[in-house]
Amino acid sequence: MHAINLAQMLSTFSEHWQPRVVGLFNGHDLMVAKVKGEFVWHKHEETDDFFLVLQGRITIRMKEGDVSVGPGEVFVVPRGVEHCPVAEEEAHILLIEPSGTPNTGNVATAAPRRVI
Amino acid sequence: MHAINLAQMLSTFSEHWQPRVVGLFNGHDLMVAKVKGEFVWHKHEETDDFFLVLQGRITIRMKEGDVSVGPGEVFVVPRGVEHCPVAEEEAHILLIEPSGTPNTGNVATAAPRRVI
Repeated sequence: MHAINLAQMLSTFSEHWQPRVVGLFNGHDLMVAKVKGEFVWHKHEETDDFFLVLQGRITIRMKEGDVSVGPGEVFVVPRGVEHCPVAEEEAHILLIEPSGTPNTGNVATAAPRRVI
Repeated sequence: MHAINLAQMLSTFSEHWQPRVVGLFNGHDLMVAKVKGEFVWHKHEETDDFFLVLQGRITIRMKEGDVSVGPGEVFVVPRGVEHCPVAEEEAHILLIEPSGTPNTGNVATAAPRRVI
């Protein structure tokens, strides 16, 4: 058993919007991702969506208003709320979602879950 | 809706081993805590135990071996595994546990859950 160094995990890949699973917690995947540019509008009916920014800044666009999330900040998108994550510059994030959750809210368009 | 700044939340209190709830995620409490010294040996039969170190360093003592966790590192203690967190110097951590979980594994000896 050992600690998971998130920066080290992030250093092993460069693709944007393709989260890598680095650990497991209570039926959830712990994932790191590099993000840049605009993702797609989507929602998860069955789960909240946890974002912790490790480096850089992201904006979570929502119909209810935009939320800016910087380093050391957490934002949880409540289940069922449509959102579109955006990053002007590359940002690094920790995501937590129930194992198997498609990242676009839709299996057909989701990135495959890859494990580091 | 707004992001949760973890450092700002940590600046609002000084007690050790008394986690504060700063957010909710899928039936779990997101908590920040300041820790220093040795906690108590305990286990949670029903839940994994998520630790992310934000500042400083902690050691998770276990019968299976010790794990050192530094800034930007995550360690998940599997459910049922006895452990004792220790910090030689003050450390700041993010914890995630199902809402209501006693921090010592025992309601009688647990710190009350306080919300910031």
